[in-house]
Amino acid sequence: MRLSDAGRDVTLAGWVQRVRKMGGMTFLDLRDRYGITQVVFDNSTDAALNEAANHLGREYVVQVKGTVAERTAKNPNMPTGDIEILATELKVLNASEVPPFTIEDDTDGGDDLRMRYRYLDLRRSPVRANLELRHRMTMEVRRYLDSKGFLEIETPMLVGSTPEGARDFVVPSRMNPGQFYALPQSPQTLKQLLMVSGMDRYFQIVKCFRDEDLRADRQPEFTQIDCEMSFIEQNDVIELFEGMAKHLFKEIRGIELTEAFPRMPWADAMKYYGSDKPDTRFDMKFVELMDILKGHGFSVFDNAAYIGGICAKGAAGYTRKQLDALTDFVKRPQIGAKGMVYARVGEDGTVKSSVDKFYTQETLQAMAKAMDAQIGDLILILSGDDAMRTRKQLCELRLEMGRQLGLRDKNKFSCLWVVDFPMFEWSDEEQRLMAMHHPFTHPKDEDIPMLDTDPAAVRADAYDMVINGVEVGGGSIRIHDSALQAKMFEILGFTPEKAQEQFGFLMNAFKYGAPPHGGLAYGLDRWVSLFAGLDSIRDCIAFPKNNSGRDVMLDAPAALDQKQLDELKLEVVLPEE
Amino acid sequence: MRLSDAGRDVTLAGWVQRVRKMGGMTFLDLRDRYGITQVVFDNSTDAALNEAANHLGREYVVQVKGTVAERTAKNPNMPTGDIEILATELKVLNASEVPPFTIEDDTDGGDDLRMRYRYLDLRRSPVRANLELRHRMTMEVRRYLDSKGFLEIETPMLVGSTPEGARDFVVPSRMNPGQFYALPQSPQTLKQLLMVSGMDRYFQIVKCFRDEDLRADRQPEFTQIDCEMSFIEQNDVIELFEGMAKHLFKEIRGIELTEAFPRMPWADAMKYYGSDKPDTRFDMKFVELMDILKGHGFSVFDNAAYIGGICAKGAAGYTRKQLDALTDFVKRPQIGAKGMVYARVGEDGTVKSSVDKFYTQETLQAMAKAMDAQIGDLILILSGDDAMRTRKQLCELRLEMGRQLGLRDKNKFSCLWVVDFPMFEWSDEEQRLMAMHHPFTHPKDEDIPMLDTDPAAVRADAYDMVINGVEVGGGSIRIHDSALQAKMFEILGFTPEKAQEQFGFLMNAFKYGAPPHGGLAYGLDRWVSLFAGLDSIRDCIAFPKNNSGRDVMLDAPAALDQKQLDELKLEVVLPEE
Repeated sequence: MRLSDAGRDVTLAGWVQRVRKMGGMTFLDLRDRYGITQVVFDNSTDAALNEAANHLGREYVVQVKGTVAERTAKNPNMPTGDIEILATELKVLNASEVPPFTIEDDTDGGDDLRMRYRYLDLRRSPVRANLELRHRMTMEVRRYLDSKGFLEIETPMLVGSTPEGARDFVVPSRMNPGQFYALPQSPQTLKQLLMVSGMDRYFQIVKCFRDEDLRADRQPEFTQIDCEMSFIEQNDVIELFEGMAKHLFKEIRGIELTEAFPRMPWADAMKYYGSDKPDTRFDMKFVELMDILKGHGFSVFDNAAYIGGICAKGAAGYTRKQLDALTDFVKRPQIGAKGMVYARVGEDGTVKSSVDKFYTQETLQAMAKAMDAQIGDLILILSGDDAMRTRKQLCELRLEMGRQLGLRDKNKFSCLWVVDFPMFEWSDEEQRLMAMHHPFTHPKDEDIPMLDTDPAAVRADAYDMVINGVEVGGGSIRIHDSALQAKMFEILGFTPEKAQEQFGFLMNAFKYGAPPHGGLAYGLDRWVSLFAGLDSIRDCIAFPKNNSGRDVMLDAPAALDQKQLDELKLEVVLPEE
Repeated sequence: MRLSDAGRDVTLAGWVQRVRKMGGMTFLDLRDRYGITQVVFDNSTDAALNEAANHLGREYVVQVKGTVAERTAKNPNMPTGDIEILATELKVLNASEVPPFTIEDDTDGGDDLRMRYRYLDLRRSPVRANLELRHRMTMEVRRYLDSKGFLEIETPMLVGSTPEGARDFVVPSRMNPGQFYALPQSPQTLKQLLMVSGMDRYFQIVKCFRDEDLRADRQPEFTQIDCEMSFIEQNDVIELFEGMAKHLFKEIRGIELTEAFPRMPWADAMKYYGSDKPDTRFDMKFVELMDILKGHGFSVFDNAAYIGGICAKGAAGYTRKQLDALTDFVKRPQIGAKGMVYARVGEDGTVKSSVDKFYTQETLQAMAKAMDAQIGDLILILSGDDAMRTRKQLCELRLEMGRQLGLRDKNKFSCLWVVDFPMFEWSDEEQRLMAMHHPFTHPKDEDIPMLDTDPAAVRADAYDMVINGVEVGGGSIRIHDSALQAKMFEILGFTPEKAQEQFGFLMNAFKYGAPPHGGLAYGLDRWVSLFAGLDSIRDCIAFPKNNSGRDVMLDAPAALDQKQLDELKLEVVLPEE
């Protein structure tokens, strides 16, 4: 309702946000999904009605009839702040006990309490707004993909277990005793079968499941925008889904992105940002300093396999205390650097570093030049005996400096594609090559000969979309040839029997005319969080689970009745305490 | 491509449907998702190309370049039948082994083979058309509900087990050993919590799971269009979702339904059709004949608790053999009638029955009049000592007669609402009252006093949408008062402790200002099947399971690795053979 509705008779229903008594008047803030409306009861008009309004408690559910009127004291902070309702009738539809926390934008409820009473937490408008955003995003995704000829096809939730990759959640089958379904980690193989079946352009917004130890951006169940296309090359997929991203930016955030997203080879992302998902909202690229800083008697650098620095513009004023805190930051076990070297470019252009005794001003100037450091800049340097590990440490330092310098604005977006991923990565734990994406990824045609000679150097037709340092989606061109697929399983250490047992259905399907195909999957939860400016994906999920995988509202999981276990032919065998 | 494209150079990719050699020409039928296009190779233009085309096998994946030309022999049965492609290039993208069945509208593959190679079965255009229909229906459902202010909100798949109702599929939790999640049988309680949270208008197209023994129209996982609204009464829900049905009929089937759907009380549905989901495409209503046929010395009728008949218009010509077959039909164990009585109205208006010796012509005429039977009609009568059971038998007979007389046209649609369901039904097995819909259904206000005195007579604010004898959706107004909800659990035989243990989260939520609410859920699979004219829901599901709950393509479920069982602290205990 707006000012133009003045004089209209209306019926409203909602929750009591607040009741204030002022002289002979009672003011009720009535809340519904669409906002808050002020309702006025006047003792001089209807004393009994006014009295009834005075007995309303917070979160009572009421129905009010009345007339829309212009407010004398307008509230510019509310969309309905120009009007109020002069009440003529009041009906209590349901009472409420006092809620365990306040239903306000900034609540006094802690995380645990909010999760236990999530149905009350969802009444708070910031949380509700996240779910509304999620609805609008999925509507726009479907609108876009439908307009491009994609069919949404549901794939099954009860599939087979594939112990390769993350852990599966499994589901015992009562009708097939001793056997289990698995919940899909993604519909990867099923969407590939849909391509074999000629479906051409498929998508699905679908729940996926991974039984992993949880972090802030992980949930045991999460939602994927899963897509696949046939008769395409990498560039077709990238262009189509970049179009989808731009569509969402425009429709949801009102941001028109006209330029093509940059495409950064994985090797460059690691070299300049130490990450396959660089936050490119700010520059501060790594500069390798091996040539300049090695061989001057500073044994830490002299023995290092990698020395790299970042230049924090205008941060030369950092105090010793701030620098010590940064050193402590990189030395935390989660990051694991041994130490940090810093250098400031002073007002007079001289460079002063924490390792001055080993270096001449000339060398330090050469370093500053290599780093494009100007007067007033701060240089931070890490080194180590494992280049990749040191780059990852430097990445954390760069992100922290970006944060401290206010360069990671949640309302600024920087999008890119990371491309040319390696096909494999070495696993120390398994002592073998593992698929970096998954075993169905197509190697770059020009690298296929290296599968036999140097598999670790083979690059894949794989691509990730990265926004603000978040991997919002990723995909690849797939193998559609059963011989190449078999070779891939061989490199990954599968015996032919094991490959057949686990993925025989897919390799057999490839024998009956599989088209060239590829696709990608977006993480919906992450993307909604990004658009909503959330730090965790939890608040864009209606009923999330906590770090132990528990739904504390439903109190799930829980023990089963013995009868259920018996029907499933299962016994729980807990270790003795 | 159409005739207007003639002269254009095109590139096509797809599967080889057929190759025919005719003189110096080779004709290739190329199939993709959009249809079949004829490609022509001419030996006199390019002998090598023609030769290559002759070596193509069925289901090879090829890319063809060529020019669109008008066909001399047009094929009116194909959308692209006016044109052909004169090939200039041919590239084999992938070969194919000979498929295990023909990829034609009418295939030679049996059910088992088709399911094992479902990815090939999906290439057949009738199956593909079902999935396209399903996509268009869900798009339209979302468009309609979004336009009415509904938010699609995802509810979790890993919830708690509630042994009331059908059996749950359960999921062991590794992080909480000995505890299990359940997969939702429906998001019923969660959508009610969303109403408590003020979400107002919710929907979700969502997978649900029931571990039941399977029939043709049941799958262990199925898809629901799940909806809920607050601050509404039964009529609001019915009108809004009748609007959705009409929207789908119009957009998907091109049928404009202008009349309101009839609303039939459950008691009438049982009385006139012996079913809570009557097929109203044809009339043939039951007529009760107790007053007319009892007490004339025919002991079968004299001892019956119910005698009822149907009048099959124009079927007096049924032979003795046909009538015997009908008698056998109703005597089958699945139906269980003891026998069938029939009567014909002859050309001269006399009624001749199979029990003439007990009845005068006058009584038979009275019967014919009661049944509105005319010359040439056939009357079929069943009786029994349990009225409800006999009505269900008569229902089967009515449906069979409708089928035999061609009254159940798949392209004719008859929609209605069945309303005023009983709140409870007696379970012989459990020896207690069970909820006919579910324990959250609101009793009719005027019947609430009977909860204490005669609960079996209490009617519910529940409604089903029935189309052509299929229950496509159902719902109810819900209880939003924790005291009434507690009473309901008491009547259903829950101790307060057990009710609290299983549904405490919901009853607690009701204490914090639950709004009046209600909703409904449509069975998507059933609705797509209805629009597609299918007999089973299987063919509108991409990857369905068989009657043993198996996915024969994936070979799921299957045994787990011992390592997985160990991590879950589970042991399989199979009974000895």
